[in-house]
Amino acid sequence: MHAPIELADIVADVFARIRSRAPRVHCITNSVAQQYTANMLLAAGAVPSMTLSSDEIGAFVTGADALLVNLGTFDAERKSAIGVALSAAAAHGVPWLLDPVFIERSPERAQFARDVVGRGPAVVRLNGAEFAALTGPELAVDAPARFARDHGTIVALTGATDVVADGKRRTEIGNGHALMSRVTAMGCAGSALVCAALAVEADAYLATIAALAAFGVAGEVAAQTAQGPGSFAFAIIDALYNLDRAEIRARLKAS
Amino acid sequence: MHAPIELADIVADVFARIRSRAPRVHCITNSVAQQYTANMLLAAGAVPSMTLSSDEIGAFVTGADALLVNLGTFDAERKSAIGVALSAAAAHGVPWLLDPVFIERSPERAQFARDVVGRGPAVVRLNGAEFAALTGPELAVDAPARFARDHGTIVALTGATDVVADGKRRTEIGNGHALMSRVTAMGCAGSALVCAALAVEADAYLATIAALAAFGVAGEVAAQTAQGPGSFAFAIIDALYNLDRAEIRARLKAS
Amino acid sequence: MHAPIELADIVADVFARIRSRAPRVHCITNSVAQQYTANMLLAAGAVPSMTLSSDEIGAFVTGADALLVNLGTFDAERKSAIGVALSAAAAHGVPWLLDPVFIERSPERAQFARDVVGRGPAVVRLNGAEFAALTGPELAVDAPARFARDHGTIVALTGATDVVADGKRRTEIGNGHALMSRVTAMGCAGSALVCAALAVEADAYLATIAALAAFGVAGEVAAQTAQGPGSFAFAIIDALYNLDRAEIRARLKAS
Repeated sequence: MHAPIELADIVADVFARIRSRAPRVHCITNSVAQQYTANMLLAAGAVPSMTLSSDEIGAFVTGADALLVNLGTFDAERKSAIGVALSAAAAHGVPWLLDPVFIERSPERAQFARDVVGRGPAVVRLNGAEFAALTGPELAVDAPARFARDHGTIVALTGATDVVADGKRRTEIGNGHALMSRVTAMGCAGSALVCAALAVEADAYLATIAALAAFGVAGEVAAQTAQGPGSFAFAIIDALYNLDRAEIRARLKAS
Repeated sequence: MHAPIELADIVADVFARIRSRAPRVHCITNSVAQQYTANMLLAAGAVPSMTLSSDEIGAFVTGADALLVNLGTFDAERKSAIGVALSAAAAHGVPWLLDPVFIERSPERAQFARDVVGRGPAVVRLNGAEFAALTGPELAVDAPARFARDHGTIVALTGATDVVADGKRRTEIGNGHALMSRVTAMGCAGSALVCAALAVEADAYLATIAALAAFGVAGEVAAQTAQGPGSFAFAIIDALYNLDRAEIRARLKAS
Repeated sequence: MHAPIELADIVADVFARIRSRAPRVHCITNSVAQQYTANMLLAAGAVPSMTLSSDEIGAFVTGADALLVNLGTFDAERKSAIGVALSAAAAHGVPWLLDPVFIERSPERAQFARDVVGRGPAVVRLNGAEFAALTGPELAVDAPARFARDHGTIVALTGATDVVADGKRRTEIGNGHALMSRVTAMGCAGSALVCAALAVEADAYLATIAALAAFGVAGEVAAQTAQGPGSFAFAIIDALYNLDRAEIRARLKAS
């Protein structure tokens, strides 16, 4: 699996635009992930905000360029915040991503996720267990494409290989490193990067590929010097901050 | 103070089992400690979850192999979550640890801790000030053993030397490093490691010793390269991830 | 811009007192910033606490040497906690700092900040956008001094150059590094350091200068070895922990 130069350049262009435009990304995310997500966004050049208060979140989302909806800590405050935030996003055309963390562990959370899918996320990013909880146990090769088509969204199914599907197109990304699963909130931070990309790239399919590919490349660079998951957690932030076109061209594995 | 090879091997065996079995540890912990605790558990090979919602926590605890109850941020949501979680733990035989953080600062929190002790923790892990708040100011040498016997639990009294007592047995552990007290949530993360050990070792007394000893050894390894508490915080995660039998045998100080 | 030796020695003296007295700093701060703020305080030698429960926060503030009030996540729990905490601070003479994060994004938060200013903060620390939201769009050179005089407080207006004004005196601090704006909660952690300084230095104006100057110097030291914002985040904690009089004398830029 390798990638044409053109795709590498699309990835590099998206990240160059994030750096130059500094898009605002409002994050409804779990309390475990808030700090790491904010630092990942700042490293990429985006400006995170995190407030959850129902009184204020409408104003924050209205002023944002993209919205992250992560279900990782699922409480009354966040459920209420999500309702207000999605109304503001719909009213002002703010693209948003759903990350239905751990829905395979809680039937109520899975039902909430199904309801939220109906409100028009630009992207749904999730792992295999979460996808199965959303759609049912059989996982045909074309299940992501079918789900994307049925719901008018992009599916980003992440794992050892990431699959991005929009119903017509499908890309597999082979970048990343095993240590990425040993740091909490790594997937949540990756979803936030997709949001930053959505803010600067109108084609949500390309934005999703760009973010996941750059994230995987940064993970590979970080693994070269990390001594374990502690140092890796910060090396990947440094790597994302320093990521350049040549590194992306040399490492991108997508087809 | 040194340790017999057999104890070092018990410590190493417990951590090998954590790595191979990847036990689920559900954590009710304070918001300051959530991220660091999750990263420490992941470094050891366990799988953390952190949700606090009363609607969901029963399902999470039922599917968990151990439960952490940390009182570090003591709010209405957590008080309610603890009640639901302890009922689920009792119903499904999930071992749990109580970490009564800062109860010496708040009479209400101390009373809550006393009530929770009555619900059957496998282990109570706390420092000297917290133990005094729980039991009264006089701190006789046999106070941990007495408390353990009276409440049918294990006491892990941590400090420069850690004391583990179950009423009949008593072990002192001399590992660790002064920088461990300069990183927030370090004790909370240590309590979470005890939970991971409880999930794979039926003798809660040995599980507690194994976790605290390995944690102290990792701290000593981390201190060899750290430049201060910032780098130490992540070096100890790397050290725990890389910890092996030879390191434990060479460094364990327990008697 | 350089600084007289005397000012460098005041900065060094304040930090020596923090290390020797280990003041307690209670922090009402946003969930994104809690961990990093606690680690920064511990590195300086202070003892952080973070509880927000209205039932307990009075006891924590009464036992504290300084209080931080940060509006970064503005929810019902924190609004209630702030009311109780400020009453306890007033009753026991605990100095406190207001950090009105992101008030330019939310009119309701700005109004809350104006109300809280009326309750007598020793210091208000904020950036230019936040200051404009508090006082109006025109930002005359003497606006900080005027605001300080009108409200009987110290204004610490932070940015590329930090301005500290108490109505009569004014100091500009030129220390710091661009990477400080690429790490979330860096400003929040800086405000917490001011609180630690307030706990050991009765002249709040000097305390504020000392904390911001030391923080900026630590940032410069950290930038010498950091590879990006990930490693910088922890290098600055190490640098603060290791900060000594010679480093402060060599680097302080204040006038």
